[in-house]
Amino acid sequence: MSANKKTIIVFSGDLDKAMASFIIANGAAAMGNEVSMFFTFWGLNILKKPESIKLKKSFLETLFGWIMPRGAEKLGLSKMNFGGMGAFMMKTIMRKKNVSTLNELIATAREMGVKMIACTMAMDVMGIKEEELIDGLEYGGVISYLGEADEANVNLFI
Amino acid sequence: MSANKKTIIVFSGDLDKAMASFIIANGAAAMGNEVSMFFTFWGLNILKKPESIKLKKSFLETLFGWIMPRGAEKLGLSKMNFGGMGAFMMKTIMRKKNVSTLNELIATAREMGVKMIACTMAMDVMGIKEEELIDGLEYGGVISYLGEADEANVNLFI
Amino acid sequence: MSANKKTIIVFSGDLDKAMASFIIANGAAAMGNEVSMFFTFWGLNILKKPESIKLKKSFLETLFGWIMPRGAEKLGLSKMNFGGMGAFMMKTIMRKKNVSTLNELIATAREMGVKMIACTMAMDVMGIKEEELIDGLEYGGVISYLGEADEANVNLFI
Repeated sequence: MSANKKTIIVFSGDLDKAMASFIIANGAAAMGNEVSMFFTFWGLNILKKPESIKLKKSFLETLFGWIMPRGAEKLGLSKMNFGGMGAFMMKTIMRKKNVSTLNELIATAREMGVKMIACTMAMDVMGIKEEELIDGLEYGGVISYLGEADEANVNLFI
Repeated sequence: MSANKKTIIVFSGDLDKAMASFIIANGAAAMGNEVSMFFTFWGLNILKKPESIKLKKSFLETLFGWIMPRGAEKLGLSKMNFGGMGAFMMKTIMRKKNVSTLNELIATAREMGVKMIACTMAMDVMGIKEEELIDGLEYGGVISYLGEADEANVNLFI
Repeated sequence: MSANKKTIIVFSGDLDKAMASFIIANGAAAMGNEVSMFFTFWGLNILKKPESIKLKKSFLETLFGWIMPRGAEKLGLSKMNFGGMGAFMMKTIMRKKNVSTLNELIATAREMGVKMIACTMAMDVMGIKEEELIDGLEYGGVISYLGEADEANVNLFI
């Protein structure tokens, strides 16, 4: 176990929880920690490229693709989203207060060497292909998560 | 503290979060960890027997029993459930991809010796009796959780 | 790292999750732990004074203030809230069973010396001022959280 390693499982695909995840990850990286983020289930939506990628998918995979948000710009809030109004309000306020957007937080995480790992099992279930996700990711499953968590002193599930 | 003990508080009763909890627990057990799962609040719904058990309950306890899902087969998704359609879709996909169902994951956890502890305080508040829950559980409260968490090196709240 | 320090990030502002947070925090404090709770995003609603405080706010801050619950008595459940009916039912049951209310749990936490820290960045984004929050809080950001988490052996995100 190391006092300067942290892991975060990002299960949620809500804008507010995604921002919290990256704020913690980037803060930890800035303090000299090695940080690993594992994106699974709805959390994978955060990592989607904004553009539509043409891929051969089964009917159910296509349906899942339709109803799920494509990328950091399209996420809603976990509470009080009101069909997107809540997320829009929060983004407007953040812009006014010069708080980083989620895309900026993701870019900073990348620059600071935060490891972002997409869960391959959840990708399979949700029919998400590597081509649909942003670049610079690693791919792994629960065993690689547990290996990293064993070496870390703070492990969060968000 | 031991590098091969893990605890998970399963607060959520959503199908997706329940599956994530058991996938992590079973993975950790497969790697030789001692794993304790504490089921509290909505998480208790995961442990309910599917059949209706006749018990003397107060009016409010009966009402709570009606509106809450009975067991692993009846849970919904935390997002995009659409009155059960989302959960049905996800289960259909998982069957096609030969991913274990929640009931299979629970059975595996049991075989691997994952300790499943039902929170007695939450049971009392929600009017859930031991007879309504599946066999092989232990019963305890926050103090027994904290005792186990002190010995573990990964502690998650899901 | 110390075996008798715990931290909890309270991100959620739901009654059930708030209660779980304080039950764990108070249990840990009773066992002799030093406990730090970090309230951020919706979790800040738990700490609001029940009375309306007149303050100069921007239009969006005022709007945010309107739609968010004011204090521990006004929170809803994360599931089955049915416009407040669920929270009312749960509070009624708890009163009958002599389980502490959230306000009592907060008072106990205070008496036991649980440190409650309000996240200044989230306060800024949501337009929440110190005058609106209950007394006896500390104020800090992600860096102070990470400093405390590094010293603790159990770190939860709720």
